[in-house]
Amino acid sequence: MRGYARFVDDHHLTVANHTRVRFGRAVIATGSSPSLPPLLRSAGDRLIVNDHIFDWDELPRAVAVFGAGVIGLELGQALHRLGVRVLMFGRNHSVGPFTDPEVRAYATRTFQSEFYLDATAEVRAIERVADGVSIRYVHRDGGERTDTVDFVIAATGRTPNVHKLGLENLSIALDGSGVPVFDRETMRCGDSNIYIAGDVNNDVPLLHEAADEGRIAGENAARADGPQPIRRRAAIGVVFSDPQLAVVGAAHNSLRPDSFVTGAVSFEDQGRSRVMLRNKGLLHLYADRKSGRILGAEMAGPDAEHLAHLLAWAIQCQLTVAQALQMPFYHPVVEEGLRTALRDANARLTRAQADTRAA
Amino acid sequence: MRGYARFVDDHHLTVANHTRVRFGRAVIATGSSPSLPPLLRSAGDRLIVNDHIFDWDELPRAVAVFGAGVIGLELGQALHRLGVRVLMFGRNHSVGPFTDPEVRAYATRTFQSEFYLDATAEVRAIERVADGVSIRYVHRDGGERTDTVDFVIAATGRTPNVHKLGLENLSIALDGSGVPVFDRETMRCGDSNIYIAGDVNNDVPLLHEAADEGRIAGENAARADGPQPIRRRAAIGVVFSDPQLAVVGAAHNSLRPDSFVTGAVSFEDQGRSRVMLRNKGLLHLYADRKSGRILGAEMAGPDAEHLAHLLAWAIQCQLTVAQALQMPFYHPVVEEGLRTALRDANARLTRAQADTRAA
Repeated sequence: MRGYARFVDDHHLTVANHTRVRFGRAVIATGSSPSLPPLLRSAGDRLIVNDHIFDWDELPRAVAVFGAGVIGLELGQALHRLGVRVLMFGRNHSVGPFTDPEVRAYATRTFQSEFYLDATAEVRAIERVADGVSIRYVHRDGGERTDTVDFVIAATGRTPNVHKLGLENLSIALDGSGVPVFDRETMRCGDSNIYIAGDVNNDVPLLHEAADEGRIAGENAARADGPQPIRRRAAIGVVFSDPQLAVVGAAHNSLRPDSFVTGAVSFEDQGRSRVMLRNKGLLHLYADRKSGRILGAEMAGPDAEHLAHLLAWAIQCQLTVAQALQMPFYHPVVEEGLRTALRDANARLTRAQADTRAA
Repeated sequence: MRGYARFVDDHHLTVANHTRVRFGRAVIATGSSPSLPPLLRSAGDRLIVNDHIFDWDELPRAVAVFGAGVIGLELGQALHRLGVRVLMFGRNHSVGPFTDPEVRAYATRTFQSEFYLDATAEVRAIERVADGVSIRYVHRDGGERTDTVDFVIAATGRTPNVHKLGLENLSIALDGSGVPVFDRETMRCGDSNIYIAGDVNNDVPLLHEAADEGRIAGENAARADGPQPIRRRAAIGVVFSDPQLAVVGAAHNSLRPDSFVTGAVSFEDQGRSRVMLRNKGLLHLYADRKSGRILGAEMAGPDAEHLAHLLAWAIQCQLTVAQALQMPFYHPVVEEGLRTALRDANARLTRAQADTRAA
């Protein structure tokens, strides 16, 4: 059966306003849609999202990218490198997937050396004009500027598709965005018969996570003996920019300030990175001050996608910094940069533990 | 004190034939030297080893590389790609670091599609001639051929520097090559006061292993309370060719045939590898039939250096195939190729275990 479904109550929904369906359990997997801030709508037919770019037969002369997150950076940098003039407008200093202020600042400077990027942009007016879209904004140099671009690309995030589902007719709790509150190990909404999987739940909008969620939700919804919690994988996020960006495990801003130490490495003087002429990057690694366990990392740098897998696996295996240092590191490899960060973390753990004993 | 040292007995050595030294414990760390088969010596002043190549101011027209191991492949392929005509002569089907016949055959075909490589070469004569070196050999097509090259590059392995040390004056056991028999967790030769570290011990001639060995040997030689065994890192070897080659953990030929299953993946149809236009490669992963533990892997393929670290760490953490499949795999990444091999191994383990129960 195909059609738009709406919940009527905890055990009924209507499909396409004509068919009523009684259900025992339901899985919500309605995905998300690009979120378009009202300001951008003035760009009219020249307002596009990432999907549209792949329909282009030729490249525009100039674009304004709104949003300096994962999608904004990947597409904006690629277009810049293809010769398109790129203006990128971000908000709240947010660049890429970072929550660590130093790593974020490093990435911001790196991308700023390549194209115009304002991570705290003030855009005053957007107007559809004859030859494109006119944008009036406060330039990073402080002056007001008006620039004309061919397209405005909205990379301003996505909104879960929850608003036309009649969720208000269900006896489940919704969060401030109208998204059901759910358990990420069972995908069940409270104690209800409703499950929710994929981007619609506004948790981690990533292919491999959505695949896990679909399986967990589907299996649990179908089980006769009630839902079983499934241990989720260590978090990993990668941005395929240059340098690549990655976050793994616990985000920096989710950690209690005095509970961890940070081990750092710059890739600017890292041997292999220099040989490859790709020596740009900074990795911060967070380790639990008490147990020495690796908790998470945020990084920009060469081959970050691979270091991210190594670290995510290490985090899921609950390795301590000392145990990770017992693992093999070949030569010459970027993994030796990770080893430098681990050694730095190790030294800080030793000092922190000495301080604790002295106190 | 600097000078060539020779052992006189278990507690004395002479340095440069004039100074006699009494020692409590000694560490042998004399390295290795290129091994030059007698046949190659006819190339006279045109016989070189890898180190010499980096002194060249200009590239020769043609070279013959003897040996298709790690050094031979890295240099031979690089020279070929720089426009030098390369003839590569190997022995015993040996190509790269492989012991798995299928992975070795795959790598052989891959390099053969790029330059002349005979892994079971029959070279009949080498002669220094006016304009270079003349080489008479049986071509892979079956016919005898004579070719003239500018240089003969010996990539025929290295020999431990043990033969002038007076080891015969020590009461330690030597193996068939004259190398002391030692314990790789203490670096001690038998129950003696002699320790041996680095390439001289003919074990794993790799920087990171030699660094570990030096530290273990030095610390144990200096300890008052006798040598302490140190757990060694999981084995890892990488060849920086294109595609890269790598071996980790237990070599295929070190495993008892009925004790393991092989999980395989070809990188020819692997998503990310195709996107990068680097879709060449084959990975074989070995898992213990009983415990499901990952034992080792041999692979040619894109970013093999990084997959090798991931696998070596997993092996050192004693992960089973099932546990590895619970780890995160991002999208789109070459690690998803590794996941395919893990799933293949998992299916084979399930069948093998069902067979065992049925038997």
